[in-house]
Amino acid sequence: MPQYTRPIQNVIDGFSSLPGIGSRSAERIAFHLLKLPTDEAMKLARAIDELKTRVTHCRVCSNLAEKGHDEQRPLCDICDDTRRDRSMVCVVEQPKDLLALESTGLWNGLYHVLLGRIAPLDGIDHEDLTLRDLEERLAAGEIAELVLGTNPNLDGDSTSLYIQELIRTSYPSVKVTRLARGLASGTQIEYANRSVLEDAIKGRQTLR
Amino acid sequence: MPQYTRPIQNVIDGFSSLPGIGSRSAERIAFHLLKLPTDEAMKLARAIDELKTRVTHCRVCSNLAEKGHDEQRPLCDICDDTRRDRSMVCVVEQPKDLLALESTGLWNGLYHVLLGRIAPLDGIDHEDLTLRDLEERLAAGEIAELVLGTNPNLDGDSTSLYIQELIRTSYPSVKVTRLARGLASGTQIEYANRSVLEDAIKGRQTLR
Repeated sequence: MPQYTRPIQNVIDGFSSLPGIGSRSAERIAFHLLKLPTDEAMKLARAIDELKTRVTHCRVCSNLAEKGHDEQRPLCDICDDTRRDRSMVCVVEQPKDLLALESTGLWNGLYHVLLGRIAPLDGIDHEDLTLRDLEERLAAGEIAELVLGTNPNLDGDSTSLYIQELIRTSYPSVKVTRLARGLASGTQIEYANRSVLEDAIKGRQTLR
Repeated sequence: MPQYTRPIQNVIDGFSSLPGIGSRSAERIAFHLLKLPTDEAMKLARAIDELKTRVTHCRVCSNLAEKGHDEQRPLCDICDDTRRDRSMVCVVEQPKDLLALESTGLWNGLYHVLLGRIAPLDGIDHEDLTLRDLEERLAAGEIAELVLGTNPNLDGDSTSLYIQELIRTSYPSVKVTRLARGLASGTQIEYANRSVLEDAIKGRQTLR
């Protein structure tokens, strides 16, 4: 592997430390940046800078939030919105899950973003999630219903199970639900896998 | 596709404009950067900054070169090295080809980096290469031998052919050679393809 001068090697090293970028791609990117007009390449540098200086997590729900001028631990737009129903909290794994649910416009409660899921194989356990914050919110007594909105897969299900166990004895009055499982709208039954069909049959909904 | 706040979307847009990075990877990278300690993420931003402020191309051969304090169009280390044989110039497509040849320690001449190859299908023609600089160097009369070191493939060969045509009539005294073709050392004949075998047979070297 040829060695480049420091400024080039630094860019290659920086990019190849990112997820999904190997050293070959990083090299290609470095040469691409070299060719780009300076202000376009700088836009990326500034964007990274701004990301780190302006974006953080909401102090209540861990959703993404922008830092204010004098506020290092701000509230996100949703927690800050007084029209939201504060008694209903939907627990999701990641900010992008929250955005997906928000885009429906159907949820008027708050959220709690775990920033991960329990995945022992990846070395992620309950300590790495925002469960302590969730317990604090439950202890405050405002929450009447907790909707478990983790992903419908093995890790998501274990995470939900863990949360159920966690609050079963301490907060018996909180109603716990989960997002419905079944056939994904727009798909075809013939291509649905066993666990989807199992969900569809076991969870069949009464029409009349 | 959910919409993120500006600072996040800017990073996603910036990364997905790079070669080989799709919007999904860009999103993953943005969240990775969010999680990273600030100074580690900033290292990448600074590396890009430095790349654009410090690195440029050699004013003679277009190899990569670092800008001096008062020198916006510097010479590269090789053109600047007085121990080099200035009468021999090896033409390569990219700085990384130059580095590969340099790593052998076997070439003591100079280089000329085309910064590309003629590839009509990619919309790259001879105007996009540093051929005008090459002609200037030839016109200066110092070059006795030009070694064509473009890649041994269709685009590389067309590029070499173009250069041969270009200098055939104007500089008849300049010797033109190309890097040897044949079996790649360390490989097996049974796996060599037709054109490698053709090169090997046609270019067979007399031993005694």
